[in-house]
Amino acid sequence: MDDNLLQYIRRYIDISDSEFLVFSSYLSTLNLKKREQLLRSGDICRARYFITSGCLRLYYIDQKGHEQIMHFGIENWWLTNYDSLLNKIPSHLIIEAVEKTQVLELKEVSLQELYRKIPKMERFFRIIMERTYIATQRRIEFMYSMSGEEIFKGFIDANPEFVQRIPQYMLASYLGITPEYLSFLRKTP
Amino acid sequence: MDDNLLQYIRRYIDISDSEFLVFSSYLSTLNLKKREQLLRSGDICRARYFITSGCLRLYYIDQKGHEQIMHFGIENWWLTNYDSLLNKIPSHLIIEAVEKTQVLELKEVSLQELYRKIPKMERFFRIIMERTYIATQRRIEFMYSMSGEEIFKGFIDANPEFVQRIPQYMLASYLGITPEYLSFLRKTP
Repeated sequence: MDDNLLQYIRRYIDISDSEFLVFSSYLSTLNLKKREQLLRSGDICRARYFITSGCLRLYYIDQKGHEQIMHFGIENWWLTNYDSLLNKIPSHLIIEAVEKTQVLELKEVSLQELYRKIPKMERFFRIIMERTYIATQRRIEFMYSMSGEEIFKGFIDANPEFVQRIPQYMLASYLGITPEYLSFLRKTP
Repeated sequence: MDDNLLQYIRRYIDISDSEFLVFSSYLSTLNLKKREQLLRSGDICRARYFITSGCLRLYYIDQKGHEQIMHFGIENWWLTNYDSLLNKIPSHLIIEAVEKTQVLELKEVSLQELYRKIPKMERFFRIIMERTYIATQRRIEFMYSMSGEEIFKGFIDANPEFVQRIPQYMLASYLGITPEYLSFLRKTP
């Protein structure tokens, strides 16, 4: 039994050991090498991924050929392309391992079956969606209201360890600033 | 019984007439005048609002004193400040009626009770959150990848009637462009 995952779920819902075993039986462990892709552009996303170690990024290639990062995901975070997953449309977003990463894969068809077996998982994923939404709402507000410098300083204050882990050009893409400007900001006290 | 609301809910979950009556008993109808506020800056948000007619906006006042609109909500859409509601923190976002508006108010304390009485409402609000999240993810992508002109043209193509209903300066704020540039774009074929 994965104690870390059990504790994580019990933060949000009451779940018995036997229910957790049923839930766990729907998960597959995937080990990804750095740069390995979980979701390719053009494919329909079929699963949600819970990150147990490492880091994923969700990004797309814009019309000018530049990578634009939408989200990062680290330990104890769910990542997927919800639009592709739930509307069953081809994804133009790519999910890729930033570093060596381990995820638990939960296929959407399995999840629908799981909801029938253990209805309280509806509650769990309802809460996860609310938290994910709040993070995204805050992000939009940052994008509107802050300068590149303020976004950078806010982000490193909130995620000091994470900033050390990822390549600087990825961080710049996520923050919507150029790598050169990021480099300048890092040198500014 | 509100047939429109019942049909709306049945798009997402199976609900019996008697369950719907229980759900309805938790809702209060509020009639708002144009510019009336449902949530004031500094208050903790205590409810979700389902719009039956009219239009709401969620916005804040930035450091320069400008209004920045985060979202609009129209008929058959839920609107609230999830961050304030779920984390019980004072809201700096304001919810206000753009025009004469009617909403159904669902208090969060009532909803927690409702989840216990009718667990399938977890499923309903899980699905609503997923849809809300997808809309927001698309929004972020637009903000990153499109020019003001592309955002404007995409928005009027997707929401032709809505564009006629709201004041132009609000539309400009939502799209992240100046009212002058919006006026210029409207004149461009």
